Amino acid sequence: MVEMNLYHYYRSSCSWRVRWALILKDMDFNLNEVHLLKKQQSEPEYVRLSATGLVPTLVVDGVAYSDSMAILEWLEEKVPSPALLPTAPSDRLRVRQMANTIASGIQPLQNLGVIRKHSRFESEQRSFARYWIEKRLSAVETLVSRYGGRYCYGAEISFADLCLVPQIYNAARFDVDLDKFPSLMNIYEFCRRLDSCQKSAPEFFTS
Amino acid sequence: MVEMNLYHYYRSSCSWRVRWALILKDMDFNLNEVHLLKKQQSEPEYVRLSATGLVPTLVVDGVAYSDSMAILEWLEEKVPSPALLPTAPSDRLRVRQMANTIASGIQPLQNLGVIRKHSRFESEQRSFARYWIEKRLSAVETLVSRYGGRYCYGAEISFADLCLVPQIYNAARFDVDLDKFPSLMNIYEFCRRLDSCQKSAPEFFTS
Repeated sequence: MVEMNLYHYYRSSCSWRVRWALILKDMDFNLNEVHLLKKQQSEPEYVRLSATGLVPTLVVDGVAYSDSMAILEWLEEKVPSPALLPTAPSDRLRVRQMANTIASGIQPLQNLGVIRKHSRFESEQRSFARYWIEKRLSAVETLVSRYGGRYCYGAEISFADLCLVPQIYNAARFDVDLDKFPSLMNIYEFCRRLDSCQKSAPEFFTS
Repeated sequence: MVEMNLYHYYRSSCSWRVRWALILKDMDFNLNEVHLLKKQQSEPEYVRLSATGLVPTLVVDGVAYSDSMAILEWLEEKVPSPALLPTAPSDRLRVRQMANTIASGIQPLQNLGVIRKHSRFESEQRSFARYWIEKRLSAVETLVSRYGGRYCYGAEISFADLCLVPQIYNAARFDVDLDKFPSLMNIYEFCRRLDSCQKSAPEFFTS
């Protein structure tokens, strides 16, 4: 099999998505830390690799790929089983709608670089992030209450769960009132007990 | 064939992506305006349809789907020809990396609702948007200078172009110095002459 090196940060939600997917697909991969608080993402060598200076980047046989959602789609195409997307296009659309509502609609607006650009005051950074997390998680709660089951979309794990769990973890860090999202919290708590989730979670790298 | 209704706003870049794709795939569809400046996206009926209150939403035989990138993936699966993604997974990854760098890395940070939340002063709204557009278009310029041709990824039109052109149009509105992005501007100017691009562009709905 190919050699895979994942450049990641333990607390980055986009990194967690990819770690979790690689574990679910039973891939062998090496981890390389890009320490965001030490600004290692802005070092020329990493910017050359990633183009954006964002984590994660997956290097496969020496070729670097970035953007967590693009990596998930690639992985699903290369290693279809176990599936992380349903089969029917209309079902796949719903999963991607949920996943993207988090990946485009929330994560970019609570990213550390973005909230620091919004304000130099930590309280304002946190309230900006909290506003967008709450607003858009409400939309995800609506979708999951319509289409969810044990997981975000029915009875099978999907991209939507891989996005949701790291986002809820971040929401808690920003003191979002999670009681507003009962459907999401059921799924979060269920997923957090999965072995694949635990082995990809931030705590796994700090304990 | 199915009945399609696209809820859109003429100047929304996410709406333009989907209009352009539907025209390229030769779909019949009706257009319904959601006037963002009149806040029609926040009206209960549209929020129920879209879940997020964001445009566009595509209603197919009475079923509503939102999120422009999820809609593009669905359309590609339902109507594979003409293709808007290459065939090989590694090529598809590159296209999605470029597209997502715009769809997640830029568009959410220059969205009107977001910049108005950032500041009540228009000059600060514009400089926040300009900062993120310039920073992330630089990454796209790097990728396109490596992998691009007539289009963002080689010689064929793809999701990346459908994201790039509306984003460049927006960048101009925010007075971004576009001379910094020669590879992107070559593609922009080429695409703007395509019939499918012209018929989906904002000007088509105002002239």
